Amino acid sequence: MSQTPLDYTAAGVDYSKIDPLKILAQQAASATKGNLAAHGVSEIPASRGESAYVMDVGGVLIASITECLGTKALVADAVRPITGRTHYDSIAQDTIAMAVNDLITVGATPMSVHAYWSAGGSDWFADEQRMRDLVNGWQRACDVCKVSWGGGETPALAGVVEAGRIDLAASSVGIVRSREHLTLGDKLADGDAIVFLASSGIHANGVSLARKLVERLPDGYASKLSDGRLYGEALLDPTALYVPVTEALFAAGIIPHYCANITGHGWRKIMRHPGSFTYRIHTLPPVPPVLAFIQEKAGIDDREAYGSLNMGAGFAFYVAAEDAERTAEIARAAGIEAWVAGRVEAGPKQVVIEPLSLTYAADELHLRA
Amino acid sequence: MSQTPLDYTAAGVDYSKIDPLKILAQQAASATKGNLAAHGVSEIPASRGESAYVMDVGGVLIASITECLGTKALVADAVRPITGRTHYDSIAQDTIAMAVNDLITVGATPMSVHAYWSAGGSDWFADEQRMRDLVNGWQRACDVCKVSWGGGETPALAGVVEAGRIDLAASSVGIVRSREHLTLGDKLADGDAIVFLASSGIHANGVSLARKLVERLPDGYASKLSDGRLYGEALLDPTALYVPVTEALFAAGIIPHYCANITGHGWRKIMRHPGSFTYRIHTLPPVPPVLAFIQEKAGIDDREAYGSLNMGAGFAFYVAAEDAERTAEIARAAGIEAWVAGRVEAGPKQVVIEPLSLTYAADELHLRA
Repeated sequence: MSQTPLDYTAAGVDYSKIDPLKILAQQAASATKGNLAAHGVSEIPASRGESAYVMDVGGVLIASITECLGTKALVADAVRPITGRTHYDSIAQDTIAMAVNDLITVGATPMSVHAYWSAGGSDWFADEQRMRDLVNGWQRACDVCKVSWGGGETPALAGVVEAGRIDLAASSVGIVRSREHLTLGDKLADGDAIVFLASSGIHANGVSLARKLVERLPDGYASKLSDGRLYGEALLDPTALYVPVTEALFAAGIIPHYCANITGHGWRKIMRHPGSFTYRIHTLPPVPPVLAFIQEKAGIDDREAYGSLNMGAGFAFYVAAEDAERTAEIARAAGIEAWVAGRVEAGPKQVVIEPLSLTYAADELHLRA
Repeated sequence: MSQTPLDYTAAGVDYSKIDPLKILAQQAASATKGNLAAHGVSEIPASRGESAYVMDVGGVLIASITECLGTKALVADAVRPITGRTHYDSIAQDTIAMAVNDLITVGATPMSVHAYWSAGGSDWFADEQRMRDLVNGWQRACDVCKVSWGGGETPALAGVVEAGRIDLAASSVGIVRSREHLTLGDKLADGDAIVFLASSGIHANGVSLARKLVERLPDGYASKLSDGRLYGEALLDPTALYVPVTEALFAAGIIPHYCANITGHGWRKIMRHPGSFTYRIHTLPPVPPVLAFIQEKAGIDDREAYGSLNMGAGFAFYVAAEDAERTAEIARAAGIEAWVAGRVEAGPKQVVIEPLSLTYAADELHLRA
């Protein structure tokens, strides 16, 4: 094909326009922290800019977060005529995963979730099969994560949300059992090991790119992957829920030094920690067929692929070297494949992926004010 | 005019299609409450179906909620060319008000909020004036409510959210200081007084109707109200923040028996409490000019107007009769006009608005499974 490679900007998501807002908002948000003093409450300062926010209320550490699904529901809508299934049970799990997989990065045990289901009109809710799948999938994901579904909001927003579509998000509240359980990175050190947890596919990041790609595929979402599955169906594999893994680690007495949920910005997220370290990856997890397919058909190189997709690594633990193998074993026992994949080194902030001869420099990730 | 009266269904919001989903979701949500036992945590059962969810974590009562703005940002977008202001500072306050005004109904002191700003594309965030107004308004509302802005999510969701639009929501976490502060309605009794807090205008409910009405107005959003202000500008008066009032009540030792945030379903929300009581209103607050204008121009009767708009009453406290006058005084001292407006009586579940000879029966409000 003579077409130019697809990338995130071409697919309509331009982080260079969003990141300045994030930084402006982070500065304003940080300026409000003094409001807690009136209540005898304080924040855990290191949680600012991390994936979840933590407050200390009389010794109880409360973590909270709000996260959105993104555009993955559009894939479900497009694939439904092909498979005859709504796939909203999977979409529900994706949405909850966005929230809880971020919440656990600070060392929290998720306790409750709220649903945010914002539809393009009242009619959205009149499709009974889809509605039941969404509700049942949401309930099942709550059960896997041992969280209580505390409530939610189901507005009909014609004119804001596109007709026939739904904007899905979840918020979650969790508890960090003690200050020792906080995984905010103060213990991260030269010599720590990096353990990857397997992703279940694209999860819910890179979906704009995956959707854009369909325009180039003669069979669209019905295209066959290397393993014989349909592209659209494989895209809809729900995001892995990593809560059982962190809970199993805590039960085994392993507290990670830091955690990163590999979402937007792909493997650049490996250097999410605010400090200056070199993250050297020596082992690549197998690339899920659906991601290999996207990389090939979109004609993007490894730098672009690993810089925006999870490429098989859905979550990273940074643990003491002596805990590395056991961390991977505990994850496997909890049902998630895992690999000791790299190490943390003193050095300039960067991610070095040795098997691919690829380096992401510090200035390729802008998350903080 | 020979046109039929405008109502909510004509304006695109059909609660009859949404309410069955709410009930289905509430049943599934309730089934997940047992998940908390694994963590040594329990829910406050009476908070299920109320406006915020409360968990008991080792004696610390954590309240949480997620709420959306609705379609009010569309009004800001339409009015900006008339006034030359983005109005997103007001829109930010509206969004936070949706969350915290609900959170306080259970007796909670709001502690933190998360922002959910889901745009129709990355370009939304490139309008610097609007972006700054949104950020500054958000920060200011947090300061008024003495909450910490803990974080947020700013996705660009082309294909889900309409181009050029934004879906705004807020989640909030609060603490109920003790079990005695829970205002979940177990103390509500025959003889209690109903105290209304003044609304600041339409708030963020009934906005679809207000927008639909513009099609009938020769001057659209530039139409003049009885007080000389522009319709569009008055619509954008930000929702009152009632947090300072509940905090002042607690400081004065007054704990309401119940609270209702008057939002969707208008004054029908006065009978939100799960029990059977008659709510007899003897005093009407003055109707904000913008709401009187809507009722007149939309040609809707009092039943429709009071059944879907706040009509001047933004929030209701149900307090012991002897606390009624002092409750109103404390609210006024906190900057919010208030009236002792009615009483709770033993009797069939209904809202009786005596000055209007209007009754809403129990079956006109479906919120619970």
